Amino acid sequence: MAIITLTTDFGERDHFVGAIKGFIYSEINDAVIVDISHQVSPFNILEAAYILKNAYKSFPKGSIHIIGVDSELTPENRHIAVTIDGQHFIGADNGILSFLTQEINPEKMVEINIHDRIESVFPVLDVFVKVAGHIARGGTLEVIGRTIDSIKTLKGLSPIINTAGNHITGNVIYIDNYGNVITNISRAIFEKQRKGREFELYARNHKFDVIHEKYSDAINFTLEKHKRNEDGKKLAIFNSSNLIEIAIYRSNLDTVGGASTLLGLNYRDTVTIGFL
Amino acid sequence: MAIITLTTDFGERDHFVGAIKGFIYSEINDAVIVDISHQVSPFNILEAAYILKNAYKSFPKGSIHIIGVDSELTPENRHIAVTIDGQHFIGADNGILSFLTQEINPEKMVEINIHDRIESVFPVLDVFVKVAGHIARGGTLEVIGRTIDSIKTLKGLSPIINTAGNHITGNVIYIDNYGNVITNISRAIFEKQRKGREFELYARNHKFDVIHEKYSDAINFTLEKHKRNEDGKKLAIFNSSNLIEIAIYRSNLDTVGGASTLLGLNYRDTVTIGFL
Amino acid sequence: MAIITLTTDFGERDHFVGAIKGFIYSEINDAVIVDISHQVSPFNILEAAYILKNAYKSFPKGSIHIIGVDSELTPENRHIAVTIDGQHFIGADNGILSFLTQEINPEKMVEINIHDRIESVFPVLDVFVKVAGHIARGGTLEVIGRTIDSIKTLKGLSPIINTAGNHITGNVIYIDNYGNVITNISRAIFEKQRKGREFELYARNHKFDVIHEKYSDAINFTLEKHKRNEDGKKLAIFNSSNLIEIAIYRSNLDTVGGASTLLGLNYRDTVTIGFL
Repeated sequence: MAIITLTTDFGERDHFVGAIKGFIYSEINDAVIVDISHQVSPFNILEAAYILKNAYKSFPKGSIHIIGVDSELTPENRHIAVTIDGQHFIGADNGILSFLTQEINPEKMVEINIHDRIESVFPVLDVFVKVAGHIARGGTLEVIGRTIDSIKTLKGLSPIINTAGNHITGNVIYIDNYGNVITNISRAIFEKQRKGREFELYARNHKFDVIHEKYSDAINFTLEKHKRNEDGKKLAIFNSSNLIEIAIYRSNLDTVGGASTLLGLNYRDTVTIGFL
Repeated sequence: MAIITLTTDFGERDHFVGAIKGFIYSEINDAVIVDISHQVSPFNILEAAYILKNAYKSFPKGSIHIIGVDSELTPENRHIAVTIDGQHFIGADNGILSFLTQEINPEKMVEINIHDRIESVFPVLDVFVKVAGHIARGGTLEVIGRTIDSIKTLKGLSPIINTAGNHITGNVIYIDNYGNVITNISRAIFEKQRKGREFELYARNHKFDVIHEKYSDAINFTLEKHKRNEDGKKLAIFNSSNLIEIAIYRSNLDTVGGASTLLGLNYRDTVTIGFL
Repeated sequence: MAIITLTTDFGERDHFVGAIKGFIYSEINDAVIVDISHQVSPFNILEAAYILKNAYKSFPKGSIHIIGVDSELTPENRHIAVTIDGQHFIGADNGILSFLTQEINPEKMVEINIHDRIESVFPVLDVFVKVAGHIARGGTLEVIGRTIDSIKTLKGLSPIINTAGNHITGNVIYIDNYGNVITNISRAIFEKQRKGREFELYARNHKFDVIHEKYSDAINFTLEKHKRNEDGKKLAIFNSSNLIEIAIYRSNLDTVGGASTLLGLNYRDTVTIGFL
């Protein structure tokens, strides 16, 4: 059994995903295919990196992750295969994988060099699935590529800490299905600067002085339900990726709205934390 | 082989579903994962219940259904596992499962009590998948929970029958992908009151005096195609869930419209049947 | 192991797809289910045919493809099962499969005749899955149907070549997730008429005199990146289905737009090629 995941910007209406899955089963008889996401915004490297980074960690060792975002081979966009923490990643060298390797040193990195045998306008199918099949059959990366020392790094938005160490300036890096606004300020960065101090978190003109561990921690359950005024309550939380997130309790973008719409927070907007 | 299904409001763009699937394969090597829906409207209990109730019946005995809607553990929202008709359901005690147990007596119900070992902002992954793994390995519910006698019941919209027994007042409970409008009036309720009588069904100012068995029963195929004026034809039908549904023949919300848009019928709107 | 694919217009929110998958696993214990698409526009035969035609070819022999578009049994819409190129297709005789059989002669075609045993408002589940189970267990089509000589053919849009042989008039037949505009002019038709001549391709008032092999062929990588003015560059290309496609380099319908929106090209619009 080989677990093959797909993270792409193909959408789910066209034939692309179906064609790739058919080809995977043609190449790897006992494949187990998992869709991580096909709804990455077209060519959005940062979004693909965020989704993949937060999904891959729960997969078993040996899983093979195919990345179908901005994957055409060009003089500036090599095809690479990288082994990180016992899992394998196949994609273009466009910066996505640098978001994974900045936290964990890769065990192996190769530039895929089987293209003389394959010319393609659809490399996810023609090249990446071939490489996945090779890995699934126990093949080593060196057979399908040339070892490389570095991959293209892309600077994401990193939070900035002032020299006095009492101020963090972060940014919105993702907005999820509930309209929750995820920042690039991790629990680790926050706690390191905090040193037990009180703080004020500002997102636009909204102020927060508590960062919760659970969404419902913002609700006072000792009050009767009708006295709580809980719906639409805004809160800051360490989310399941240990990033600071601005949320609305029980938000729904189609009805009551979410943090993004209600608080007017957009991708790349600034969020600041001041320590008192 | 263990069939694990997912019914959530996570959407399909974020990393949530991928992360959960990775964790399922980490816990249950031979899992077969089935997506029932990830497009439940956020926190919409009734919608989740409708989708799950109409999907689960076709699954084999022993299937394990994980429900990821409104799943955070709170003082008012316990985590439960319930066995109904040989199938297992894991979710929060928020009313969703009461829509299943009102028709079939559950064989077993427990309040999950493994939380002392797991604290989580993402319980579907940290708690529900753990429980699913336990069940998939043949474990009993008593090991991961404390037997309970009742779960939270949530009143859905039930049709009302007048004392004379000649009038049913129902409601729209779901609008599907075609814009078809599904009511809470079942074939059983209808036939029980009908007693062979003629009837008039009203949805807004639209009247129906036949309830069809198939969509195409509304079309007269003895006429030549161009004489039929069939597109856009409105009809009432017993749908595949044996509920009365108001439909437009060959509807398409993006082009010609569907029953919901063309007839102006919304979620919770009233539909009445009078027997003559 | 039996690969069962689904191509439907059911969408992914309702219970339909989940119910069908549950029933497939009930019927075919070792099924591997692949979603080709559930986002076909409701009742859109041409769109379903385009998606299925471009996806099925990469599947292994023996794969079973269920088509859930316009599938209700009517006097004019028989249920059929067809074997083409070692793969099996189950659907309604509404023209979809004629797009596949026009290129490859089917090995076998039957009209499904097990309906006396099954009456249904949901034939994809009640009839098509039963037939798929029969085929998956090695059964022959003759057991579940009556051999037929022909199926309903539906004229798609075919490109027209003028008598002088120096002009091709084609049409837009599909617009994909990137807004790329796919025409019905294949590489084979183009090259056959071209005979080495120069040409001018017109889509609305946009002119192209090169058809690329890769999207990035339109970019001059010898220039430095900031001098290339590459984003939003329009181009013509032979796509992965060997059809002429009008594209915008790195398009995104939600941000910069795609060929469909930027060039004002819609489904069925005319594209012409004149040979000089």
